[in-house]
Amino acid sequence: VTKRSYTIIGVGAVGGYYGARLAAAGHPVRWVARSDADHLRTHGLGVSSPRGDLHLDDLEVFGPGQTPPPSDVVVLATKTTANASAAAQVVEAARPGSAVLVLQNGLGIEAPLAEVLPGRTVLGGMSFICAGKDAPGHIAHLDYEAVTVGEHRPGGEAAGVTPAVQAVVDDLVGAGVPGEALDDLVAGRWRKLVWNVPFNGLSVVLDAGTDELMAHPAALELVRTLMGEVVVAAAADGHPAPDDVIDVMLDRTAKMTPYAPSMKHDFDDGRPLELPAIYAAPLAAAARVGVAMPATSTLFAELSFLDARNRARS
Amino acid sequence: VTKRSYTIIGVGAVGGYYGARLAAAGHPVRWVARSDADHLRTHGLGVSSPRGDLHLDDLEVFGPGQTPPPSDVVVLATKTTANASAAAQVVEAARPGSAVLVLQNGLGIEAPLAEVLPGRTVLGGMSFICAGKDAPGHIAHLDYEAVTVGEHRPGGEAAGVTPAVQAVVDDLVGAGVPGEALDDLVAGRWRKLVWNVPFNGLSVVLDAGTDELMAHPAALELVRTLMGEVVVAAAADGHPAPDDVIDVMLDRTAKMTPYAPSMKHDFDDGRPLELPAIYAAPLAAAARVGVAMPATSTLFAELSFLDARNRARS
Repeated sequence: VTKRSYTIIGVGAVGGYYGARLAAAGHPVRWVARSDADHLRTHGLGVSSPRGDLHLDDLEVFGPGQTPPPSDVVVLATKTTANASAAAQVVEAARPGSAVLVLQNGLGIEAPLAEVLPGRTVLGGMSFICAGKDAPGHIAHLDYEAVTVGEHRPGGEAAGVTPAVQAVVDDLVGAGVPGEALDDLVAGRWRKLVWNVPFNGLSVVLDAGTDELMAHPAALELVRTLMGEVVVAAAADGHPAPDDVIDVMLDRTAKMTPYAPSMKHDFDDGRPLELPAIYAAPLAAAARVGVAMPATSTLFAELSFLDARNRARS
Repeated sequence: VTKRSYTIIGVGAVGGYYGARLAAAGHPVRWVARSDADHLRTHGLGVSSPRGDLHLDDLEVFGPGQTPPPSDVVVLATKTTANASAAAQVVEAARPGSAVLVLQNGLGIEAPLAEVLPGRTVLGGMSFICAGKDAPGHIAHLDYEAVTVGEHRPGGEAAGVTPAVQAVVDDLVGAGVPGEALDDLVAGRWRKLVWNVPFNGLSVVLDAGTDELMAHPAALELVRTLMGEVVVAAAADGHPAPDDVIDVMLDRTAKMTPYAPSMKHDFDDGRPLELPAIYAAPLAAAARVGVAMPATSTLFAELSFLDARNRARS
C-alpha cells in the first residue's frame, strides 16, 4: 500500500519535526522551504529528540518560485504572519481532493485560506510540542509532540470527526505521534488560546519563562484572569471548554520544563509576533458576542507597541 | 518679619528643589538626609534650572540618628516606599502646632502619618516638576515646578482651603513657585493618578518614554483606557474630576519634552517602585465602592512581577 503523500510548507520546528516523523514512517514528503532550501538539498534534515534522533537525506525540496507536485495532504506550518504570502503556494500544492492542514496557532486562520481553496478539505491542527530550530536544517525536539486535528466549517460550527480528520490522525499515529481528532475545531482553537493568550504575551512583556510566571503570585493571578477571559469568550462564542480547563492547564504548566513560548523566540529574533491570530481575532470574536476581555486587551496593546518597536529596530 | 521655618525630609529631586527655592527666598530650612548628609554639609546643595541656578552653602544638615529642632512646616519628600521608616523622623521634627506636608504621589499616604501625628496639621502636596538628582548634592531642574496643596481629613472629605494650606501656598508663591490651594486633597490626588497610573507603569513595562507612548496608536488607546478607569473610580469615590481631564492631560503630555516618569528612574536604578500608593491604594479604594479597574489591575500585576525581580537582582 502506498502511503499518503504530504507537502510541508514551512520547515521550522513544527513543520520540520512532523514532516520528519511522517517521512521516517514511509510517507512521501515534499518540503517547501525558504532560506533553508539549499541547505536541506545538500545536507538533508536532522532532528534531535528524546524519542530518538533522525536524519533524512535526498529530500524533495522546493525553494522560492518552485511548485511541488500535488500531495494528498498539504501542511501549512509557517507562522500565521506569513499566511497571506503563503496562500498562493498552498493553492498550487493542493489539488482538488487534497486536504490542507493548517498547523498553526490562533483563531480565524482557516477561513481566508478556505476561500481560495474550493474543492479542497481544510483542516486545522494544533501542535503541543517543545521544539526549536537550532541550526539550518536541524530541529531540536525537547518534549511533548501531540497534535490535535479538526475540520473547518465556514460558520465555525463543529464538523464532527470527518474521514479527512481521521485519515490525518491515523497517519500521525502511524508515525508514532499522538494524534487526536477534534469534533469541534474552533473549540480546540479556543482551548489552546487559554494557554497561549497569557503565556505567549506575558513571556514577551515581562521577559519571563513559564516557571517565573508560575512562581510569582501576582503574575499567576494575572495568568488566571487572562485564562478566565478566554474561557468566558469561548463559551459565549458557542465553544465552551471543560469546567476544569484552567486548573488542568496550570497544573500541567507547573510540571513542565521551564519554557519560553514561541512568541518569545519570535520577539527575541526580531520576527513579527503572531498578534492577529492569537490576540486580535479572539478579541474580535468576543466583541461580536458582546464579551469584553479587558486584561487581554491591555496585554494586546502592550504587545502591539513592543512588536512595532521591535520590527522597527530589526 | 521672620519667615516660617521648614524641615525637608528627603533631599532628592523634589525635596532638594523646593527646599532650595524656599531657602533662597529667606526661609530657615533644615535638611534631613541619608546618603548625601556628609556631602551636603561639606559642599552644600546645587540646583541647575532654566529659572536660574542656585548654590546653597552652610546647610543645617541632619543625618541618620540626628533630630532637627521643630520647624513650622515639615515636608516629607522621600519616596512613599520609605514612609514607614520615615514616620518617626516626621514625628520628632513636627512639634504640636507644626504642619506636615506630605509631598508625594499616590493615594492613602496621609492617613497612616496623621494617626501618629496628633495635634499637627497634615497637608498633602503634589509636585508637577521634571527634575532629577544628577549627582550627590545636585539637582537638575528641567521643566515645570507647580505644586498643589490641600489639607487631609480622616474620612477623605474636602477640607476646603484652610489657613494652613494657604500659608504654605503663600510661602511657595513667595519663593517663586506656582502654588495652588486644593479645597479637596483627595480629588487632587486622584487627578494626579489619572496621569501617573498610565505613564508611570507603562514607562516601566514597555521601557518607553512619554513621547513613544503618545506616538503609538495602541499604546495611546491603552493610556486612555487606564485614564478612564481612574476617572470612573475617582467619581465613584466621591471625588469627580472635570469632564475634560483626559483630553487636557493628553494634550499637555503631547506638548511636553519627552520624559521618563520617576517610576522609570526608580526601576532603572534598582529602587523599589511606589506600587502601594500609586496602584494598590487606588485599586482598593475603587473596590470599596464596587468599581473594577481591569486594565489597571493588569498593569499592577505586571509591575509587581517586574519590581520583585528587579529588587531580587539589585
